[in-house]
Amino acid sequence: MKRHSMSSLGVIPAIASDIRVEKLEHRTTPKIPFPHKHDFYQLVVILSGSGWHEVDFTRHTVSKNQIYIIKPGQVHGWKLAKNTRGYVIEYTDASFPKNMTLENHITRRSRALPDMMKLGKSKLVNGKFFELMEEEFRHSQIHSQSILQNYLSILVLDLLRLSKAKEADNHEQEDLIMAFTDLLEEHFREEHSLAFYAQELKISAKALSAKIQRVLGKPAKEVIQERCFLEAKRLLSYSTLSVSEIGYELGFDDPNYFSRFLKQNLKVSAQQFRQRALKKN
Amino acid sequence: MKRHSMSSLGVIPAIASDIRVEKLEHRTTPKIPFPHKHDFYQLVVILSGSGWHEVDFTRHTVSKNQIYIIKPGQVHGWKLAKNTRGYVIEYTDASFPKNMTLENHITRRSRALPDMMKLGKSKLVNGKFFELMEEEFRHSQIHSQSILQNYLSILVLDLLRLSKAKEADNHEQEDLIMAFTDLLEEHFREEHSLAFYAQELKISAKALSAKIQRVLGKPAKEVIQERCFLEAKRLLSYSTLSVSEIGYELGFDDPNYFSRFLKQNLKVSAQQFRQRALKKN
Repeated sequence: MKRHSMSSLGVIPAIASDIRVEKLEHRTTPKIPFPHKHDFYQLVVILSGSGWHEVDFTRHTVSKNQIYIIKPGQVHGWKLAKNTRGYVIEYTDASFPKNMTLENHITRRSRALPDMMKLGKSKLVNGKFFELMEEEFRHSQIHSQSILQNYLSILVLDLLRLSKAKEADNHEQEDLIMAFTDLLEEHFREEHSLAFYAQELKISAKALSAKIQRVLGKPAKEVIQERCFLEAKRLLSYSTLSVSEIGYELGFDDPNYFSRFLKQNLKVSAQQFRQRALKKN
Repeated sequence: MKRHSMSSLGVIPAIASDIRVEKLEHRTTPKIPFPHKHDFYQLVVILSGSGWHEVDFTRHTVSKNQIYIIKPGQVHGWKLAKNTRGYVIEYTDASFPKNMTLENHITRRSRALPDMMKLGKSKLVNGKFFELMEEEFRHSQIHSQSILQNYLSILVLDLLRLSKAKEADNHEQEDLIMAFTDLLEEHFREEHSLAFYAQELKISAKALSAKIQRVLGKPAKEVIQERCFLEAKRLLSYSTLSVSEIGYELGFDDPNYFSRFLKQNLKVSAQQFRQRALKKN
């Protein structure tokens, strides 16, 4: 992957609110060059083949029976062998009716999934599940989008089970954590204090902190810092912004403090990290 | 089928609100003797085999790639060859969350389906669709009931397309007709006048009549009479009630009027119809 200026790092917009299902062989060359990010969810199902797929600084070796779950805003790129077979499934928050029950908030549940999962233990991979889904999309007719919503719900629920993602027993609690991560996604560039998020969520900082620790298994402060750090790595790797510009972009007004923050997390200097990313790509 | 007194004509109650999916080979002998009726929906998928299946006085020859859709209250019975393979799917109104969108009112949509359909044109029959569904039920775990709701929604929506059931363009209108048929199912024994149903639905009799004619393609009076007539046939065939007792049961206070009603619709006398039903069973 080449380094791109931030403005040239393409963002592919969603196409309406349709759920799209296509064979991977029609999509091995991206519509805009890698690396890029989308404002939609993209599931890449690998049934056979080889290559690599990099999602947010982690390069995965592509092999059969994998699924990649790329969430809006994640930077990714891949290189796949020509004989790679599978499916690409794309959707957005708008692909589901707003008034669906919590059980069916499929996009929220998608966000809880890891970037890559092995499908080996899912019965879907042996059945004709993906084939049925793709055929439904290709021969689109009345009720097709409803049917695709149902197929996608099955897939995401099955993946959730496979991932053994810790699900809060209490739906209200799960809702709160979802609301927090939504809010963080929107504001991490300018708001680093838990107090801000607690106020927005109309809950005490202490209560929010306790719930985040219980559900996500780490302190709230760490969750906020991790989000900033991920974005810093993206900008170091794929943009031409200077370190202090990046710090400013991420709400660190003191360049020295930002440098220390980076060094502590990167383990190497910002310059060294950039060099390595450039070489790797 | 033997003739049964009304009290011995078993009604199998639903088992909780679960969606159940079982292989037909485990169910060829009914839990209570045929003929019987249920208070749940039952889909009988025939993938291969032979025999007959009678639903409300229509005997169908069983052959591969058929689906039977038995709605609550319908009387049915079957005799299947030992090598018959397929699936039995059972569900109730309570199997789906109450606040689902109209698009997903799967039980209402089930009621719009004919008693028997040929699956040949559905891609579901060639895929492993039913196998996946049965496996999900057999290895029940977290999210299984949500996943089964989604599979069942796909199946019913696909059947609706296949049946080319006339669907009202206007959802409000469809809602009204559904509300009317629900109400009729509950009250046809005591209320035969359109005025009663119009009042309950808070609409003028004239407007209700026009909408029924437009959507169902026949006058409201005929729809009400057909429902009474179906029940009369069930009671003549499967119960030991006398003709006037049946008339009374169905809200006909004047036995002579009921006799004329029967004769006009049966084309033969009530006695002759009973004899034939007995012989046939």
